[in-house]
Amino acid sequence: MALISPSRRLRRTPFSDGVEAAGVKAYTVYNHMLLPTVFRSVEEDYRHLKEAVQVWDVACERQVELRGPDAGRLMQMLTPRDLRRMLPGQCFYVPIVDETGGMLNDPVAVKLAEDRWWISIADSDLLFWVKGIAQGWRLDVLVDEPDVSPLAVQGPMAEELMARVFGEAVREVRFFRFGWFEFQGRPLVVARSGYSKQGGFEIYLEGGDLGMPLWNALMEAGRDLDVRAGCPNLIERIEGGLLSYGNDMTDDNTPHECGLGKFCDTQTAIGCIGRDALLRVAKEGPAQQIRPIAIDGPPVPVCDRWWPVLARGRRVGRISSAAWSPDFGTNVAIGMIRMTHWDAGTELEVETGDGMRRAVVQERFWI
Amino acid sequence: MALISPSRRLRRTPFSDGVEAAGVKAYTVYNHMLLPTVFRSVEEDYRHLKEAVQVWDVACERQVELRGPDAGRLMQMLTPRDLRRMLPGQCFYVPIVDETGGMLNDPVAVKLAEDRWWISIADSDLLFWVKGIAQGWRLDVLVDEPDVSPLAVQGPMAEELMARVFGEAVREVRFFRFGWFEFQGRPLVVARSGYSKQGGFEIYLEGGDLGMPLWNALMEAGRDLDVRAGCPNLIERIEGGLLSYGNDMTDDNTPHECGLGKFCDTQTAIGCIGRDALLRVAKEGPAQQIRPIAIDGPPVPVCDRWWPVLARGRRVGRISSAAWSPDFGTNVAIGMIRMTHWDAGTELEVETGDGMRRAVVQERFWI
Repeated sequence: MALISPSRRLRRTPFSDGVEAAGVKAYTVYNHMLLPTVFRSVEEDYRHLKEAVQVWDVACERQVELRGPDAGRLMQMLTPRDLRRMLPGQCFYVPIVDETGGMLNDPVAVKLAEDRWWISIADSDLLFWVKGIAQGWRLDVLVDEPDVSPLAVQGPMAEELMARVFGEAVREVRFFRFGWFEFQGRPLVVARSGYSKQGGFEIYLEGGDLGMPLWNALMEAGRDLDVRAGCPNLIERIEGGLLSYGNDMTDDNTPHECGLGKFCDTQTAIGCIGRDALLRVAKEGPAQQIRPIAIDGPPVPVCDRWWPVLARGRRVGRISSAAWSPDFGTNVAIGMIRMTHWDAGTELEVETGDGMRRAVVQERFWI
Repeated sequence: MALISPSRRLRRTPFSDGVEAAGVKAYTVYNHMLLPTVFRSVEEDYRHLKEAVQVWDVACERQVELRGPDAGRLMQMLTPRDLRRMLPGQCFYVPIVDETGGMLNDPVAVKLAEDRWWISIADSDLLFWVKGIAQGWRLDVLVDEPDVSPLAVQGPMAEELMARVFGEAVREVRFFRFGWFEFQGRPLVVARSGYSKQGGFEIYLEGGDLGMPLWNALMEAGRDLDVRAGCPNLIERIEGGLLSYGNDMTDDNTPHECGLGKFCDTQTAIGCIGRDALLRVAKEGPAQQIRPIAIDGPPVPVCDRWWPVLARGRRVGRISSAAWSPDFGTNVAIGMIRMTHWDAGTELEVETGDGMRRAVVQERFWI
């Protein structure tokens, strides 16, 4: 593997000092920001995530803030998910689509108030699309990237650790809801959410100055829980079917192809820019879709490009993420597969980085 | 330095196989794509760039293509530079600004025809802004990222090498002009441009299949010229005052602050979205501006975050890029400095990664 060249353009976060002190070994870049990928090893980090609790620097989940009288209208223009019943205090996973129905991002929308939203984004400059739409439609709304840096606490002991730092009331926060909790006298949004299937929270830190105090408070309070610095784990997220924008989907894909049809209320999401384009696909269904795929044989190499998926020599899809799963004893993978070959149990061939492998479409993700 | 984790999200390019075979040591990520930063060492690459010729994988300069009857109108909406006299066959460096006059990108616009443009972008998803504007204004134009990957040939021997591969006519291409040249029967845009001050060309490769044949043809034709794989060089670009979006400027900055006022025709660029916001700054001038700064002492550490610039303990600016220059025997740097302290010869202090250093504002960049 090559090194990553530091520069101001690959932005550090309020938690970078902690990440470095914890011995980060590798990074990726996400929203022009450093995102750790490995501390001890991907497999050691995976085991620990499933057994203890980790603190993740996910400041790269930048926020797009909408503020003003047209904020709610603009938010609905961006997504085919019907937001009319969404209340302040709720978080919604919202596919964001352009006028062709192509996915531009798959963020979590955080409704702070009727006229104030955060969109907690995956890896694309969604800010630019939202600003362009607001400008072109002359909406009465301010659109900005605020100084907000999420810190995730994930793993089976996450609730215990959070209660020690934020108080017992944090246990009452329900899944994809948030509350306001104080840290050093400052109110912070704390949501029960995160990019793992092990349970946990995301703390939306406003202002960078509290970054290291918050990091250190969590590390100290969790010493006997074996808390460690961690990061989104490749194996665990594939096992759990957590998609990654830019890996598993791009702006070529509709939400329905990504298996996100359940987040599209194409009939009722009036005002959504991509609604017309999605009406037909919502009715007829997509011609290809994301599927969990098990790949035979020993651990696959790193999936750093799309691997062709074949059936009797004919191309029927592609693999976009893959890793060896110690817990399930197979290579777990995410693929986009044509409907002719997407039924569970279908046998396929995958052209991996080190040769052809037999693969089988799974009924569901592993967790 | 940490490692970079490969994934499909950090896209490979049509030239990646060549880059790896040439022994790339480090990457950055640029427009969600791998951009090499070091082959032998930054200093060895620098010396060679100034003496011979290099082939650079700059496929990460992605294109935003505008096509259709409103393409020209849209292009003018994006930039305060007056494009009325621009002819097909010309390349213009164009600041792109939002409605507040903040820079969203500093690309090169390539006018292919009256109704067809490429915008060869720096590191931000400009595509999203352009699509949003086109959608909001209901313009009759298609906006897309085409399968076009620039390959740069830079250095004093660049013209000689290009003539061997594309024929003698390539010598007639003037600075920031382009022509169509054939490679293996395929017509390619070849421009005299590039992100160095050593002279050279950029080949806009359409379709990835010709990537390695083109790379190999250049390497073979230039063997006696000591051609090597290279990349934009940190030292050389600072010496030459070539700005880097995300390092030296962000959407907080106007073009005037970046010293790009000469590319702003605020009076005549009718239709530019940011024009109103820029009228005042164009008249009164900015309160801070990019300046070349020499930093005293031994080689500075890597500038991976803004370094505060002080005068008598008061903050008057920031350094965003810095490196030791072997040719000029000083640390060369790019800073944003308040007008009270931006005159050439002004003595300043810079809080570098390893302590305070004396620094002096320069009259001009080093080359």
